[in-house]
Amino acid sequence: MKWGWVLLGVLLTFGYLCWSEKGLEFPEYDGKDRVHQLTIKNYKSVMKRYDAMVIYYHKPVGENGMSRKQFEVEELALEVPPGKGQGLLEVDSIYIFADDEIIEYDGELAADTLLEFLYDVIEEPVEIISNDRELKGFHHIEEDIKLMGYFKSAKSSHFIEYDDAAEEFHPFIKFFATFEPKIANKLNLKMNEVDFYEPFMNKPVTIPGEPYTEDDIVSFIEEHDRPTLRKLEPHSMYEIWEDDINGQHIVAFAEESDPDGYEFLEILKEVAQENTEDPDLSIIWIDPDDFPLMVPYWEKTFGIDLSSPQIGVVDVEDADSVWMEMDEEEDMPTADELDTWIEGVMSGRINPDDETDYNHDDDEEEDDDDEDE
Amino acid sequence: MKWGWVLLGVLLTFGYLCWSEKGLEFPEYDGKDRVHQLTIKNYKSVMKRYDAMVIYYHKPVGENGMSRKQFEVEELALEVPPGKGQGLLEVDSIYIFADDEIIEYDGELAADTLLEFLYDVIEEPVEIISNDRELKGFHHIEEDIKLMGYFKSAKSSHFIEYDDAAEEFHPFIKFFATFEPKIANKLNLKMNEVDFYEPFMNKPVTIPGEPYTEDDIVSFIEEHDRPTLRKLEPHSMYEIWEDDINGQHIVAFAEESDPDGYEFLEILKEVAQENTEDPDLSIIWIDPDDFPLMVPYWEKTFGIDLSSPQIGVVDVEDADSVWMEMDEEEDMPTADELDTWIEGVMSGRINPDDETDYNHDDDEEEDDDDEDE
Repeated sequence: MKWGWVLLGVLLTFGYLCWSEKGLEFPEYDGKDRVHQLTIKNYKSVMKRYDAMVIYYHKPVGENGMSRKQFEVEELALEVPPGKGQGLLEVDSIYIFADDEIIEYDGELAADTLLEFLYDVIEEPVEIISNDRELKGFHHIEEDIKLMGYFKSAKSSHFIEYDDAAEEFHPFIKFFATFEPKIANKLNLKMNEVDFYEPFMNKPVTIPGEPYTEDDIVSFIEEHDRPTLRKLEPHSMYEIWEDDINGQHIVAFAEESDPDGYEFLEILKEVAQENTEDPDLSIIWIDPDDFPLMVPYWEKTFGIDLSSPQIGVVDVEDADSVWMEMDEEEDMPTADELDTWIEGVMSGRINPDDETDYNHDDDEEEDDDDEDE
Repeated sequence: MKWGWVLLGVLLTFGYLCWSEKGLEFPEYDGKDRVHQLTIKNYKSVMKRYDAMVIYYHKPVGENGMSRKQFEVEELALEVPPGKGQGLLEVDSIYIFADDEIIEYDGELAADTLLEFLYDVIEEPVEIISNDRELKGFHHIEEDIKLMGYFKSAKSSHFIEYDDAAEEFHPFIKFFATFEPKIANKLNLKMNEVDFYEPFMNKPVTIPGEPYTEDDIVSFIEEHDRPTLRKLEPHSMYEIWEDDINGQHIVAFAEESDPDGYEFLEILKEVAQENTEDPDLSIIWIDPDDFPLMVPYWEKTFGIDLSSPQIGVVDVEDADSVWMEMDEEEDMPTADELDTWIEGVMSGRINPDDETDYNHDDDEEEDDDDEDE
């Protein structure tokens, strides 16, 4: 597969340094220009040359020196490729053109995160599970929305409908299938039946009315694509953040690799499982380990200490927030206490706009002057 | 805690772009210089100002234009701080000065990886486990070497010896303790006893001869610090790669979040558990998801396809390698087949130097000329 990189030079020239260890040499920028500047004139010829291509569509560069330096590129007036008909592309967005799909990338603008996402894009949309160890691997995935279907074979027309539906959501939602009666039996799946798994829930929901058309599956997913508890992932962080409920997010910070954070996350899952029927409840779990560069910003913006777990409600307009009080040294809240706090948020009794505004009364900066001589 | 950043400007000015979402603003470089250039004259005054400091010690910049640009800094003739007595620092290394410890950072030179590591550095060296959910979190950690001790309280002299030992290995090896008889009971721990857990092993080994002095614990760990199976982590990748056995590494690539990779990893753990007594066996597991930027390099260097699991033996001098043949479409090898292959490597029958050299006969580059006009 041949890759086209459009306007991503800034990212790919990141200062990854090379320590000369054979077998572990990090890529250094080789001076080769892999970024095409797309214009009305050249875009057709450029797009023909690659199987997959990444487009970063941005505004004209402003007067700010720093941003000008990062974006020493022309403005693009990019037409949508013929036959796609999506209308104009959004400004400041990245689009991935692969096979016949256009996938919007709404994640962290960092080379490694984008590249990892691209590897997912080029994988098959449906993964086949054929033995017990693979089934264990399937159950191990708990952070994504996933589906599992049982079909006679890859040639089955019902499987083909399922595969077509998978293409619509790939790679954000994970589609699995099995052709093995033994595996289907362990999953309590009848032939042509598909189970839908919400993240962090123990039990799936069977999509009603099998055998399904592609549209049946697509509609069901669209009705259920906002989980009660979801993890903020670097590759989709902005997409999730934009999906607020009444301008607010309930946000929980917990470091899974730390026993305290693990404990809090277990309690959180329990509360989510109890409230999974509530369509207005959606909690975003952030593992600070996934966003080390954001930690100081969050601590300052929200006025919290991220070395221990936190849960709060954030106004997405002005980042005002209010956080549940927790004893640092004592045990975590119980599931009941957490449930009561969440009820307070849902009823509007606990509201970020009632609280001190951490953003605006904290303009002092630490003195960081350089002492060099 | 106040941080000093020494010579890390290149990393911190990474092109992280800011999409203006309240609550999700990635830090942009603010133009403030947080990098001190340490010299004989200023280092004492600079070091006094911070609780923790990162030092990058490097060679004079060469003639190469790209590296000159990255390192527009002076060479340092850095003395070791008084009383430390470690002798001269290694060139091209990063050292972290925190409390009274100097920690060498031998990981990926990327801002997020280094910062995540720094957050681990400033945590307490021993984490206390006081309830069942935290215990579950403790068991959840399987990729690191970890220890668990049972003591009367934080004031116990035996705990203090344990804590002192922890400081020697922090944050690379994880130390836990409990003061709760119920938790100790579940772990079969007697008072003042410490269990040592090798990564990916089901059962711990009890350190003999309790109660221990700090030296007892340190010596035991130093004798057991090369696990049979270990994961390559970005924050310690070079340290692990340098710890080869007779100039070779057995390397397994498996993506844990993919059912195929998960299956292979389960088989690998089984084989590692069976061979844990063999001091000459050490397998490095690499999850390609952790190193997206390295994937094309590894595929080219080793002549393999990383979209499915791989195991091979690599010569660390010239990166020659030989890889186990696996059917892409069929089932993974059984534990017995994998065990036989590993025996072949250990006996020298399977040897990277016998194989075609993928490195040197593959100099063609893809034509990437730019078609822009």
